[in-house]
Amino acid sequence: MKKRFKLLAALAVVPGVIALGINQKVIAQGGDARTAKDAAERTFVPPGKTDDYYLFYSGGHSGQVFVAGIPSMRHISTIPVFTPYPGTGYGYDDESKAMLGGMTWGDVHHPALSKTKGDYDGRWLFVNDNANNRVARIDLRDFKTKQILKLPNVSGNHGSSFVTDNTEYILSASRFSAPLAGKYAPVSEYGKSYSGVVAGVKVDAKSGKMSNGFQVKMPPFNYDLGSVGKGPSKDWAFWTSYNAERATGRLEVTASQKPMDYIVACNWKAAEKAVKEGKADTVGGVKVIDPAKVPGVVYLIPCPSSPHGVDVTPDGKYMAGAGKLAPLVTIYDFEKMQQAIAKKDFQGKEDGIPVLNFASVKTAEVPVGLGPLHTEYDDQGYGYTSLYLESAVAKWKIGDWKVVDKIPVAYNVGHLVVAGGNAANPYGKYMVAMNKLSKGRHLSVGPSQPESSTLVDITGNKMTALYEAFTEPEPHAAQILKADKIKPIEVYPKSENHHPKAIWKASDSKITRKGKNVEITMYAIRSYFTPLELNVNEGDKVTLHITNGEQTRDEIHGFGLADHDINVVIDPGETKTVTFVAKKAGVYPFYCTNFCSALHQEMQGYLTVKPRK
Amino acid sequence: MKKRFKLLAALAVVPGVIALGINQKVIAQGGDARTAKDAAERTFVPPGKTDDYYLFYSGGHSGQVFVAGIPSMRHISTIPVFTPYPGTGYGYDDESKAMLGGMTWGDVHHPALSKTKGDYDGRWLFVNDNANNRVARIDLRDFKTKQILKLPNVSGNHGSSFVTDNTEYILSASRFSAPLAGKYAPVSEYGKSYSGVVAGVKVDAKSGKMSNGFQVKMPPFNYDLGSVGKGPSKDWAFWTSYNAERATGRLEVTASQKPMDYIVACNWKAAEKAVKEGKADTVGGVKVIDPAKVPGVVYLIPCPSSPHGVDVTPDGKYMAGAGKLAPLVTIYDFEKMQQAIAKKDFQGKEDGIPVLNFASVKTAEVPVGLGPLHTEYDDQGYGYTSLYLESAVAKWKIGDWKVVDKIPVAYNVGHLVVAGGNAANPYGKYMVAMNKLSKGRHLSVGPSQPESSTLVDITGNKMTALYEAFTEPEPHAAQILKADKIKPIEVYPKSENHHPKAIWKASDSKITRKGKNVEITMYAIRSYFTPLELNVNEGDKVTLHITNGEQTRDEIHGFGLADHDINVVIDPGETKTVTFVAKKAGVYPFYCTNFCSALHQEMQGYLTVKPRK
Repeated sequence: MKKRFKLLAALAVVPGVIALGINQKVIAQGGDARTAKDAAERTFVPPGKTDDYYLFYSGGHSGQVFVAGIPSMRHISTIPVFTPYPGTGYGYDDESKAMLGGMTWGDVHHPALSKTKGDYDGRWLFVNDNANNRVARIDLRDFKTKQILKLPNVSGNHGSSFVTDNTEYILSASRFSAPLAGKYAPVSEYGKSYSGVVAGVKVDAKSGKMSNGFQVKMPPFNYDLGSVGKGPSKDWAFWTSYNAERATGRLEVTASQKPMDYIVACNWKAAEKAVKEGKADTVGGVKVIDPAKVPGVVYLIPCPSSPHGVDVTPDGKYMAGAGKLAPLVTIYDFEKMQQAIAKKDFQGKEDGIPVLNFASVKTAEVPVGLGPLHTEYDDQGYGYTSLYLESAVAKWKIGDWKVVDKIPVAYNVGHLVVAGGNAANPYGKYMVAMNKLSKGRHLSVGPSQPESSTLVDITGNKMTALYEAFTEPEPHAAQILKADKIKPIEVYPKSENHHPKAIWKASDSKITRKGKNVEITMYAIRSYFTPLELNVNEGDKVTLHITNGEQTRDEIHGFGLADHDINVVIDPGETKTVTFVAKKAGVYPFYCTNFCSALHQEMQGYLTVKPRK
Repeated sequence: MKKRFKLLAALAVVPGVIALGINQKVIAQGGDARTAKDAAERTFVPPGKTDDYYLFYSGGHSGQVFVAGIPSMRHISTIPVFTPYPGTGYGYDDESKAMLGGMTWGDVHHPALSKTKGDYDGRWLFVNDNANNRVARIDLRDFKTKQILKLPNVSGNHGSSFVTDNTEYILSASRFSAPLAGKYAPVSEYGKSYSGVVAGVKVDAKSGKMSNGFQVKMPPFNYDLGSVGKGPSKDWAFWTSYNAERATGRLEVTASQKPMDYIVACNWKAAEKAVKEGKADTVGGVKVIDPAKVPGVVYLIPCPSSPHGVDVTPDGKYMAGAGKLAPLVTIYDFEKMQQAIAKKDFQGKEDGIPVLNFASVKTAEVPVGLGPLHTEYDDQGYGYTSLYLESAVAKWKIGDWKVVDKIPVAYNVGHLVVAGGNAANPYGKYMVAMNKLSKGRHLSVGPSQPESSTLVDITGNKMTALYEAFTEPEPHAAQILKADKIKPIEVYPKSENHHPKAIWKASDSKITRKGKNVEITMYAIRSYFTPLELNVNEGDKVTLHITNGEQTRDEIHGFGLADHDINVVIDPGETKTVTFVAKKAGVYPFYCTNFCSALHQEMQGYLTVKPRK
């Protein structure tokens, strides 16, 4: 045991060292000139042309989503989700501030596009918050976060968000185990009082509105990455787990004792049915199924130690499980899994959950290399597996289960994404490797290092690295959407503005006082606010409704108020409300913070706060 | 008057329309294929190679600074300054939270590199907060914000930061006027109770520590952009101003009545001397000079209406003032200005400040085109002026005062930056135009539009547009530094860690309890925290000191604590402290938020909060 741990520990602390093989030297030198020239031309998007694909990166503990273009890999936009963002005023007006619920960060790991019939439909992007057990929905009509939902009982919403074929559910699993319903129990009671959870968040087909659906109480393992079935397996979802040891303490040691961990297979249709049939208990406000009492909802499948990714092939027939501490990808056959379930071909149970017979469900092993983490698929029948320890990506053929190519990346790749790679019909063509350590691939910017990602052309027999881009901490996963799949609006039509205090001409603005409450309807248009003087008394509560009267693309106005920590940004056609107390007497300029015209600099006014006698 | 305003208003509301000339059509089509191929090769930095220059963009109301590389224009890093940033943990530990002083945004307009003998020395980058009247210093040794200083009396610290030749001062001017010392006065008393301010922030030569130096009380104009003299003019600084009308209300109308506004010329050495000689009064805690009583400190120079930029040539002999509502750049001769002062060749006074005779100090006019804003200079004797209304940049020869080339940009350029362009010896080679409106140059991302910037090769007779990059809102200005001028550290040496609670081995970690106060010294190293169990009681105040024991590049650890809004990021060799109250009983996992090793996922522990009986 001790020897085994020493090996793991050694692997863990030497990232990048293994990477310095011959291939790495080639990439470190930037390839030969011909290749560089070729790559330059293939990634260059001339001024005035636009990219072919959207790349939606999770922003990790920045709490945001980053949008880049492919093939240029240029950053285009940051979508704030769990973190206030003064650049767009998110979290500064009353509505978005309330949505954030007093929290100022999240940990976004796995963005997932909504689907219709298994393919990306370009309606919504769902993202998880690993830290604070939330999911959020971004509307791709306007690229704004519209809802944040808390998942009770789920401790560490890491294995999320995974979208079913027609966006019926976002499926999720808890990374950590903890007592359900937010209860207290000491860590010494881990084995008996702590639980993992598999959760289904219901999505309204029309509005996208999310609500807590079902949950399944699970053994206190650590649940990790997942994916949703497709075609024959579309009613199922799969997650890896580690810590089958049910250990606490120093997990790098205590949770690496057993040679095998598990993949969870959850029949979400069966879970939904069980809830409908009243077989679930209400725990923490959500319907929770105990699988020991309700058979047929979850099964466990053995997988070599500490698996990280389990990824269903586009045809839904196979699941590829990558045990990061084993040099191979284990392929499971969905049909064999169904037969094992039917025949009760089990090798044991964990807390009443049947463990399928490993030999019966495993169909192949792909010897990909060191530290395999995640697999994505293209449109040509190939799988691409990231190799963390080897700092490379292996390409292998589905069915043959043989590696056909390997490409080095710099360094220590985590997730990777193929264009359309999670859909029933992947687009193929490009793959992006998200590298965890960038160590000197960029101009030095001090100890806070950016993350690097490598754009790879996967059309030929040999993969070709085209470009290296750097992002803010920290993309864990991404989704790639064809540009022509969406047509976002760039102006809010007046007809859609249902804010009760929206006004459409300056002369409709007014100031109403009721005791210490001052309510102002303000109008912003190039290049002035109305009213331009807000005169209040010390201690007044001010409620300000600002309408941006513009109906022109890019004509955004900002309302920045000195020394009040207020910066409301109003897009064309929007109305936003901000409430504050004028605490301190004085004179405070306000001005448009978002450049709008040649007379933008003149777009200013004053809040005067008169002292109380 | 009315007719004049109508023209201005028309210009203001049709940005982009004038831009659609023949040149714009060419750039909109991406140029011809040969050019695109050429531009691709000239901007491509192959994987493994690094860029030649740092581009430091101001982040506007995002409150941050963005770092990109030239020629790739790739984003490399975001430096948080006035806004908390969970991506690097800025604003989440006690020290950085205290530095932010409860504020969560700022409005960064003009970054300025520190100088030695007039050239960039690569030590610090200073930035202003237009909204909340602050300046900040970023240390380029580690790319971190080290100090934020409030400027009393300065309302709207827009005309900042401008650095003197040997970084003696950062010079600043107030955009708005307001009563000094934070006093209250109604807007109706604007003319008599409101003042502008020109300020000098003293910089300690060794540590970079900033402190409020002198201030000069100015008439209630709106002060705008500035620059510092060089060579013969090195003791002087210049700012444009508008609103010589001293108007309030709708400034786009009221402040556009007079044909001329002013450039302020301030002798900062004379101001420093006046303070030393006791000629200043203490107002709002700072030494404020009244120029009516202390002659020789400030003068006013007439400039065509609503000037925006005034930029001193590298040799320090000329100042180029751009009146944004006049189609020309007015060139002033520093020598003539000195003669006018000596001869008292004044055309009037404003609040006791002499107004130099326009005809005596103006030496030329450069007919650059519509909407000139800012000028930067290269190493070959050329000036480059941004043309907001024309969406173009004009190149003209110093001394000849003739336009030699013009290049369209998309669209509505504000600031522009030449490599090394604010130094005594510019680098030249590249110019970046920061365009205010990007209108469809990028994949649509909804109403919140990114900003566009154009990289231009300025080495030949004809300027060549090479690349278009997009940034978050909103770069107003930038500085370009040669990559080899700095060598940032990437690990904090243990020897430099002076945190009293730093520890360098896990066994030194401890938990100390004193009543309801729990103090924990924690150690983080791949891939575990020590201690791993933090057991406290409901209502306890927890002070946590976390040391990252790594001494390896990119081995950053994060401490994310569920449901407590805490994400502390600790760079290699750093110790950070975070204090919080354990308000709610329950079990809260904590984990490493910054990917660190193959066993990163296992780097977790628990905070248990026991209910009070």
